[in-house]
Amino acid sequence: LARRRLLASCADQPGIVAAVSRLLHDAGANIIQSDQYSSDPFGGTFFLRMEFAGTDHVVEGLAERFGAVAERFGMTWRFGNPAVPKRVAILVSKQDHCLQDLLYRWRRNELEAEVVLVASNHADHREAVEAQGLPFHHIPVANPAEKPEAERQLLELLDGTCDLVVLARYMQILSGDFLRLVGVPVINIHHSFLPAFAGAGPYARARERGVKLIGATAHYVTEDLDEGPIIEQDVNRVSHCHDVGALTRLGADVERTVLARAVGWHCEDRVLRHGNTTVVF
Amino acid sequence: LARRRLLASCADQPGIVAAVSRLLHDAGANIIQSDQYSSDPFGGTFFLRMEFAGTDHVVEGLAERFGAVAERFGMTWRFGNPAVPKRVAILVSKQDHCLQDLLYRWRRNELEAEVVLVASNHADHREAVEAQGLPFHHIPVANPAEKPEAERQLLELLDGTCDLVVLARYMQILSGDFLRLVGVPVINIHHSFLPAFAGAGPYARARERGVKLIGATAHYVTEDLDEGPIIEQDVNRVSHCHDVGALTRLGADVERTVLARAVGWHCEDRVLRHGNTTVVF
Amino acid sequence: LARRRLLASCADQPGIVAAVSRLLHDAGANIIQSDQYSSDPFGGTFFLRMEFAGTDHVVEGLAERFGAVAERFGMTWRFGNPAVPKRVAILVSKQDHCLQDLLYRWRRNELEAEVVLVASNHADHREAVEAQGLPFHHIPVANPAEKPEAERQLLELLDGTCDLVVLARYMQILSGDFLRLVGVPVINIHHSFLPAFAGAGPYARARERGVKLIGATAHYVTEDLDEGPIIEQDVNRVSHCHDVGALTRLGADVERTVLARAVGWHCEDRVLRHGNTTVVF
Amino acid sequence: LARRRLLASCADQPGIVAAVSRLLHDAGANIIQSDQYSSDPFGGTFFLRMEFAGTDHVVEGLAERFGAVAERFGMTWRFGNPAVPKRVAILVSKQDHCLQDLLYRWRRNELEAEVVLVASNHADHREAVEAQGLPFHHIPVANPAEKPEAERQLLELLDGTCDLVVLARYMQILSGDFLRLVGVPVINIHHSFLPAFAGAGPYARARERGVKLIGATAHYVTEDLDEGPIIEQDVNRVSHCHDVGALTRLGADVERTVLARAVGWHCEDRVLRHGNTTVVF
Repeated sequence: LARRRLLASCADQPGIVAAVSRLLHDAGANIIQSDQYSSDPFGGTFFLRMEFAGTDHVVEGLAERFGAVAERFGMTWRFGNPAVPKRVAILVSKQDHCLQDLLYRWRRNELEAEVVLVASNHADHREAVEAQGLPFHHIPVANPAEKPEAERQLLELLDGTCDLVVLARYMQILSGDFLRLVGVPVINIHHSFLPAFAGAGPYARARERGVKLIGATAHYVTEDLDEGPIIEQDVNRVSHCHDVGALTRLGADVERTVLARAVGWHCEDRVLRHGNTTVVF
Repeated sequence: LARRRLLASCADQPGIVAAVSRLLHDAGANIIQSDQYSSDPFGGTFFLRMEFAGTDHVVEGLAERFGAVAERFGMTWRFGNPAVPKRVAILVSKQDHCLQDLLYRWRRNELEAEVVLVASNHADHREAVEAQGLPFHHIPVANPAEKPEAERQLLELLDGTCDLVVLARYMQILSGDFLRLVGVPVINIHHSFLPAFAGAGPYARARERGVKLIGATAHYVTEDLDEGPIIEQDVNRVSHCHDVGALTRLGADVERTVLARAVGWHCEDRVLRHGNTTVVF
Repeated sequence: LARRRLLASCADQPGIVAAVSRLLHDAGANIIQSDQYSSDPFGGTFFLRMEFAGTDHVVEGLAERFGAVAERFGMTWRFGNPAVPKRVAILVSKQDHCLQDLLYRWRRNELEAEVVLVASNHADHREAVEAQGLPFHHIPVANPAEKPEAERQLLELLDGTCDLVVLARYMQILSGDFLRLVGVPVINIHHSFLPAFAGAGPYARARERGVKLIGATAHYVTEDLDEGPIIEQDVNRVSHCHDVGALTRLGADVERTVLARAVGWHCEDRVLRHGNTTVVF
Repeated sequence: LARRRLLASCADQPGIVAAVSRLLHDAGANIIQSDQYSSDPFGGTFFLRMEFAGTDHVVEGLAERFGAVAERFGMTWRFGNPAVPKRVAILVSKQDHCLQDLLYRWRRNELEAEVVLVASNHADHREAVEAQGLPFHHIPVANPAEKPEAERQLLELLDGTCDLVVLARYMQILSGDFLRLVGVPVINIHHSFLPAFAGAGPYARARERGVKLIGATAHYVTEDLDEGPIIEQDVNRVSHCHDVGALTRLGADVERTVLARAVGWHCEDRVLRHGNTTVVF
């Protein structure tokens, strides 16, 4: 049996689930899992994630037949195929803990993802990446003037090769032009519990402010720095004993965990955007 | 508009959601929220919780019409009415932290519940309970020989008055006969992270074993002591500094939180039993 | 045996612990617990909390003898007496979950505190407070023009009666003059994970920003709103399902827990200020 | 300046801290950090961890001079040298998540440890280990009859080469003879929240029991399987949705985190045994 996932959203209105489940049933597909959420059942937005199974023939014909239902309800929708892992490109700078953790989970098949390349503005991690049979691309950005050319090279590199770009502590700010042209979602890990300590140096500022928890935030990247839709956050308890070095070390554990969850959920088609927030099924 | 909740389970099979959602739609009811789970989409058990809204006329006629669908799929099912809070009887002994927390949440309307009475094998909390306008019943159990008579009195007291019995640190073990005759679910809070430290004196044993986390477990009561289906658990971090008194004090916070969550979820019809485990939507 | 606590801080330098412990030992006092922290052993600030026991005679003579040691090291210091609970005044507005929780812990003797009065800008909680044998003072602030007079009344009320003021969701901003004149520490609970969502309406802003955790922060109040030294913070996991009402309800649990911890630690002399941060032993 | 750590325990009695701190001060050493705990200040056991700094000459002479103080108080004690990382041997079987995480932290210098070798009853991880420049020893145990010989080989391999043995999901039970002869502490990671689910197959049993949290426990290995002194534990929230595979995957994250913390604390001389429990400073 083949599987597919339906991701859909539209203005909430009566009869959506009835229509979708009937179409799938009549076509001979079996619903395996279904999650739905409505921001307000009377006038809100409706979100649906359905995983279903059927023969190849049944499943392949469904996308076409679903178009009519989607049009009737004014749906934004797509079908995902769990058998086709998302192709992921990872961008990284000097810090490699998030990179290493993603590669570790990729090797263990914990993510529905195929890492296709790693690119960096530094050459440090070339050996470690290539040792795992992955292409590594060094695209330096020695000064701000080089950034447009670096982004051009990155776009050329990524063009058509990936379904998701992951900024695994990539310390360059991507331009709005880049984000528009890259054409796939970009997930970033920010090393603070946003909206606290947006911007640079969050651990130093956390130490200075004397917070008792530090955190990390994985979010979709938008043109507004550190303002994109949040996918996942978590925290770790700290105390007056932890200096900036200790906060950075403890924070690295939260960062890699939070980023791995966000990337995993995205690749399993669990994350739907809702304005500047996310629905995570 | 009136609301209802459908709770249903049956052998998983194609077409369940399609049939249920079609029935609701055709009847003029609007699905507000829906959660489902299958222990295995091919041969497992299917669980469904659907909340829907419609005119009084529509909603009242639905239970009857649903019977046919339920029969077709071999469903165990019931309709819940969110407008009718569950009637809750609380049993307590000397420790009152869980009792106080449940009463606090009841007064704040945080639970879909109406506390109808408090009973205890001790008289200590009479004043505090009656001050809140609630009946308090003292049913002493001075020695094991008195237990059958005490249970008889409890059954008489509870008969027809409540939809749920909550053991809020009630330190008497209820007999299998009592559990069969009481006819409503009974939720207990155990002061350990079950299955660790089942039985008596869990905090003393936790101290002796040197655990680094203590916990609490809310579960449905069955004839097998501390073996019933778990609804919710949580833990709190402790260290070598905490003696049994400190563990007991810290544990009280976890106990009251875990019990309140379990009672709240039960009253919102979110908990379905699955053998000796639970599905919590 | 009588007990005392020494709280001291000074520039870190060799010989502090040797001098203090020798003084105590020579005087016949026994160290029961000792915690120390240095922001940097070479040139930083040193913090010490020592609890010790001795006969009444020994302990009473110590404060005087300690003066010489303190002078030698340039210490800021004080002796605390665990047998004398801190006198606490609670200020509250409409929301009573923090008030109720503090009173509950006070009745259970969980805090080294004696609640001496409750004051509020609303009359709502008079009955509940007085039922516990506590004086309740209604000091209304109908409009900003009334604030100076209300603060004057509060100061008169608090003068000499308490060692700590707790703002248990008191929704009036206290002036710098008030804070200077009140002469005792003031602890506030802010309903967000500071520095995120400082200011008004944190749960609505949390919902809008789509955070995946909500939090609460207990801090000493300074003239800079929401900027005082943080004593404790904690968080609770939330999702897209939680609207502002649900966030507020879940948040109330975190608020009361965090505030109770902060007040408890303060009353046990565990919290030392270090610039705009705290050392919590 | 050289640093040392004093780890000491003895029957609690007056004057210990005064004597120790005076000795250090008189010798010209400066206390950098100090933690102490008494199971009962009147008749209990006293535990001390002190880190101090001084010239090479001062520090090297101290161990000898400390002997007299230790004798006076009947102390069990030792000096640790933070500049000399603990030599760690890792034993592993098929599952490599704990191994990989320890090696990752070792490369990042997060542990005060030097990994000296990896041994396994399977050959699977040879390549990955040797790629990091570490010796890998395959000591197969095809059947129980081979165990004594395997243990003999292990003992020969470990003899004098390491200060700590870490069982990073090593699935062979070590004999009492081995534990006596190996002569260094052995830390194990158990994949459950002990004492729950001691023994084999904890995730399957957790699924069957329907627990809502899964955990992991790092402990010193003693002859009583899964009964040794616990160093650290942590948990992860799970639900009815997680089958044994998902529990195992989520559990792997807790296991690696808990083991890394326990190994790190041990190597920093933060863990003292107290009967069958631990004091972790």
